[in-house]
Amino acid sequence: MDSPIIVVNFKSFTEGMGGRADLIARAAREVGAESGVIIAVAPVSTELHRIVRHFPIPVYAQHVDGVGPGAFTGHTTAQELQLAGVRGTLINHSERRLTLAAVEAGIRSCRALGLETIVCTNNDATTGAAAAMGPTCVAIEPPELIGSGISVAKADPGIISRSVDVVRTVNPEVKVLTGAGIHSGECVRIARDLGTNGVLLASSVVKAQDPAAVLRDLVSQL
Amino acid sequence: MDSPIIVVNFKSFTEGMGGRADLIARAAREVGAESGVIIAVAPVSTELHRIVRHFPIPVYAQHVDGVGPGAFTGHTTAQELQLAGVRGTLINHSERRLTLAAVEAGIRSCRALGLETIVCTNNDATTGAAAAMGPTCVAIEPPELIGSGISVAKADPGIISRSVDVVRTVNPEVKVLTGAGIHSGECVRIARDLGTNGVLLASSVVKAQDPAAVLRDLVSQL
Amino acid sequence: MDSPIIVVNFKSFTEGMGGRADLIARAAREVGAESGVIIAVAPVSTELHRIVRHFPIPVYAQHVDGVGPGAFTGHTTAQELQLAGVRGTLINHSERRLTLAAVEAGIRSCRALGLETIVCTNNDATTGAAAAMGPTCVAIEPPELIGSGISVAKADPGIISRSVDVVRTVNPEVKVLTGAGIHSGECVRIARDLGTNGVLLASSVVKAQDPAAVLRDLVSQL
Amino acid sequence: MDSPIIVVNFKSFTEGMGGRADLIARAAREVGAESGVIIAVAPVSTELHRIVRHFPIPVYAQHVDGVGPGAFTGHTTAQELQLAGVRGTLINHSERRLTLAAVEAGIRSCRALGLETIVCTNNDATTGAAAAMGPTCVAIEPPELIGSGISVAKADPGIISRSVDVVRTVNPEVKVLTGAGIHSGECVRIARDLGTNGVLLASSVVKAQDPAAVLRDLVSQL
Repeated sequence: MDSPIIVVNFKSFTEGMGGRADLIARAAREVGAESGVIIAVAPVSTELHRIVRHFPIPVYAQHVDGVGPGAFTGHTTAQELQLAGVRGTLINHSERRLTLAAVEAGIRSCRALGLETIVCTNNDATTGAAAAMGPTCVAIEPPELIGSGISVAKADPGIISRSVDVVRTVNPEVKVLTGAGIHSGECVRIARDLGTNGVLLASSVVKAQDPAAVLRDLVSQL
Repeated sequence: MDSPIIVVNFKSFTEGMGGRADLIARAAREVGAESGVIIAVAPVSTELHRIVRHFPIPVYAQHVDGVGPGAFTGHTTAQELQLAGVRGTLINHSERRLTLAAVEAGIRSCRALGLETIVCTNNDATTGAAAAMGPTCVAIEPPELIGSGISVAKADPGIISRSVDVVRTVNPEVKVLTGAGIHSGECVRIARDLGTNGVLLASSVVKAQDPAAVLRDLVSQL
Repeated sequence: MDSPIIVVNFKSFTEGMGGRADLIARAAREVGAESGVIIAVAPVSTELHRIVRHFPIPVYAQHVDGVGPGAFTGHTTAQELQLAGVRGTLINHSERRLTLAAVEAGIRSCRALGLETIVCTNNDATTGAAAAMGPTCVAIEPPELIGSGISVAKADPGIISRSVDVVRTVNPEVKVLTGAGIHSGECVRIARDLGTNGVLLASSVVKAQDPAAVLRDLVSQL
Repeated sequence: MDSPIIVVNFKSFTEGMGGRADLIARAAREVGAESGVIIAVAPVSTELHRIVRHFPIPVYAQHVDGVGPGAFTGHTTAQELQLAGVRGTLINHSERRLTLAAVEAGIRSCRALGLETIVCTNNDATTGAAAAMGPTCVAIEPPELIGSGISVAKADPGIISRSVDVVRTVNPEVKVLTGAGIHSGECVRIARDLGTNGVLLASSVVKAQDPAAVLRDLVSQL
């Protein structure tokens, strides 16, 4: 069975930049080594290269534009991400929605350069659509759970299990992450019990006074 | 077997508004009646209601925003389209791309009100994604054929047949249209031979001096 | 001195479509005739033509794309609006933001066809920018007042008076509307006292059980 | 009088990343030192930090989102740019258009952190609008010159001189760059003669076999 994965999205949080980015990356390395759980980080684009060089952990970008190389000012290309040394990228996060064509172009441009893709989706229909395009992973962010403080354990788990089912039907090679409602080790265990490979989360780690302690709690029931 | 369908997109062409919209709609009615082919039209939004009332032919909108009803200024909602009396709408045309989430919301809001949806896509991967969301129809617009004057008959037909295959695998209830490269009756026949239910086209009819003559040619080999 | 103007934005409210659109347009005509205040309406695009034909009041669209005519599917062009017979259009409403280039193209395409433009802005800096492009009117929607239920009378009026000042400096021919925080005749009077020509408002009229009564209250202190 | 400035936009060109980014930055330093002209570079975001640390030249980002810090995945914030050590950023390049509100928010968020802003515009009306928002600089990219190979020297110079005039009227503290049609030292001199402070250019330097030679030509008539 696949080993569990935790992806920590630093977003544009002050608490996830500069020295704090290093601190969280170090915590990810330590807790990952202790637990055997893969703990990845997704810093802002200007800090990707530094985090990749200093920390032997999987690093993801937060976004890719499926264009270029070429005359594309202010875009983030797969080529640029490959040069920065990341393992892959988030695509279509709820805070950075892309057109259907751009999601597909992003997946394709990353695949061509050996980069992984984690496509964020909002329900089982868009999860099926994303899976049909063959990304590495789909991360389901039920809108009612995003930033709500509600645990996926307490909410209706149907959207997660239906999404797992639809991915298995459409393209069983695509992995699934639970992308919202994760606050504790119990949430992570439930996300795994519902059939997802791991979790994508942000503020509960990034804004924590002691990110390592939060990460230890998150892996505690695996 | 399904009867063939031709959808004429009026875009924002001067030649598809006002009196010209009436002229083309009349031609669609006549040639449809003569041939047994369903010939539908997609006028600009301000003229939908008039065309629906005056012509007993299927009328589609060119776009829907999958929102509302509610506080959405400058949007086109499914409710508004239903009140206008249309049969359905195009979604995600290459000239009006939507986010993955918006395509799905558009399909869902139309389905809830009994409206058909024709989702435009650009390759077999996005066609599979669109089909997974269960629209009435997918219209494939290979980018290399859009507005090129190249006939789908002369171009590599692989993108069309692969798209038909992927739709059959993902969701066989979804119909498929060939959405670019259609200029003549031969193109329409080839589109049918490749397994698509019909065609979506625009300028070759809308900008024609005699739209009825062009429509007669388009249905001539069916 | 300019006569005051009230623009009622129907948004995509159910209460502003179909028979309700007629009811509000009729109220606008009656209260406008009684009071001498210009009361305009902005229905959804599919209903523009009908409202224009049936009611001798100023009718505005909610949005324009500054393109075309031509191959622009799912867009709303100035040409289409002109054919529908409207007096002008809102541009860049807070619910339908446009690029700087698109705002300017919208203003320019409307001006070329004799249509008025009401550009919505969110602070004094964007108000100055909008005024520099020479629309008919700028409508200031302070974000803290939009849909808040807070009256412009109770909030800090500085943003409105600063916006009036910046418009007078940049382009004194441009009119100014207060675009949020309007709930009563007192609000309208204060909006006038702050130097704006009138108001743009929506739900307080559109969702009212008796729109005519609300409109009578709105004009009562002028 | 202001010393002239040349800003080299690396876009997403392969020839402007990795070792090539270093080579061009080194050429900018050398030719800048020889000539007294300020030669700045605008690399992709993942390489900003490295170029800033290794080359004592002005470095600009290609884009900023006027948001955050906070929950903004896949955005480029002013805070992130400040941490990377850049001098400022392009905003609203023709390849990365922003809403009017986002342009203003970008200018404001940069100003608050002491970063310069170069707002790209497409004609004299949008130039006036941009100047009204008080950026450091406006760069005019006449659409007919972008990527055309046509020199601003040969094209109608009216758009440049009208833009300079409108900036002087609206906000004389804002600098102006000629943002398209620059291929040679003669073009740069003409851009200066038309009243602009300098030029923004891309492929003619970035794709050159010998960027230093091209830069030497560009400054040769100043």
